[in-house]
Amino acid sequence: MSKVEARLKELGIALPEPSSPIANYVNYKVVDGFVYISGKGPVSPERTVTGKVGADLTLEQGYEAARLTGISLIAALKQAAGGDLDRVDQIVKLLGFVACADGFYDAPKVINGCSDLLVEVFGDGGRHARSAIPTHQLPLGIPVEIEMIARLKD
Amino acid sequence: MSKVEARLKELGIALPEPSSPIANYVNYKVVDGFVYISGKGPVSPERTVTGKVGADLTLEQGYEAARLTGISLIAALKQAAGGDLDRVDQIVKLLGFVACADGFYDAPKVINGCSDLLVEVFGDGGRHARSAIPTHQLPLGIPVEIEMIARLKD
Amino acid sequence: MSKVEARLKELGIALPEPSSPIANYVNYKVVDGFVYISGKGPVSPERTVTGKVGADLTLEQGYEAARLTGISLIAALKQAAGGDLDRVDQIVKLLGFVACADGFYDAPKVINGCSDLLVEVFGDGGRHARSAIPTHQLPLGIPVEIEMIARLKD
Repeated sequence: MSKVEARLKELGIALPEPSSPIANYVNYKVVDGFVYISGKGPVSPERTVTGKVGADLTLEQGYEAARLTGISLIAALKQAAGGDLDRVDQIVKLLGFVACADGFYDAPKVINGCSDLLVEVFGDGGRHARSAIPTHQLPLGIPVEIEMIARLKD
Repeated sequence: MSKVEARLKELGIALPEPSSPIANYVNYKVVDGFVYISGKGPVSPERTVTGKVGADLTLEQGYEAARLTGISLIAALKQAAGGDLDRVDQIVKLLGFVACADGFYDAPKVINGCSDLLVEVFGDGGRHARSAIPTHQLPLGIPVEIEMIARLKD
Repeated sequence: MSKVEARLKELGIALPEPSSPIANYVNYKVVDGFVYISGKGPVSPERTVTGKVGADLTLEQGYEAARLTGISLIAALKQAAGGDLDRVDQIVKLLGFVACADGFYDAPKVINGCSDLLVEVFGDGGRHARSAIPTHQLPLGIPVEIEMIARLKD
């Protein structure tokens, strides 16, 4: 078993089968070793988390939604790496959007749910640049959407 | 005539002359074969589409606005490719914003207007990673703004 | 003194000491000569600018906030360049968000505060692709958040 897969198992995380977008775009593109992953949300076969953080959801629930989003990002990254997460050199950048109630100013603490997961799974290589941006709503009513750039090993 | 230009003609699409930004930024940057194109909207010399999707505009009108935005992106990409669209290897990524009325959750279906166009024009090389993000409004009152990363052939 | 540092001095700009993010992300990542800088705002040890442009702040005050944000981005870029800003080849791209009051459509003119600064400091190499996107609010109540991609010299 790969090192990263062993770490996921230790953390009790099972990666979902990545869904195929039902449109003319793809889950990821790999160009010159850079992986660009399409925006993902807290959507799994079992459930879709919805609601605005600061109104329908607490900060803690938003954090969990961002962590669940991170699991979807790692599942897409595994696909991009040809099934072998040990080929991931580093996480480069996140751009995370949070559906925030008016006056809820803690979008960065929500996106920490994804950032913390990436460091738990990939260690120092999981540290990344990022922005955490509030918006008034997100597709399907989800609370969090995050896109990611990663780098594979040469 | 280049293959892509022939395809544009077949689709009945005439590329506008790209406007020059009236500020200290540029339409595009080419670095290491990657083309970064500045955010574009459904703005042409003939008309500027305005309004929020889900209130002033229907989903279908939003889709058309995203398609019109895609035409502007291709026009800028042609400029970046030194006038020859056959030098485009692939479309890498879109980040699309949609001015959405409260409770309009279909921003991805709006951005499909641009995604579908790119695949019509560039074929499989037109498939891309993307995010589709709602916002409460956009500059000039436009309904759609999209930025793009593409890759030129070596 | 480096050329860029001399230019900063001429402009009367003192770079702040970049703050360390208190979470599992970093100020910047350098990969293959590309520098990805995390979203920054008009936050300095002396003050944090807050408010929405078009309501609490005028366009001019928003422009100044974007300029202050640009100074933070240059400070992080200096760190990424190992302390030597003359190693910066070019600024590639900005993605700027502006907390806008309903009906304030001039987010691009706000982000000009950062774009103008980059050209003042780096000359032609400072010209960049960009998007300027309104949002209903930003973290901590700040009016502007901008992330940046730059390229170092080989």
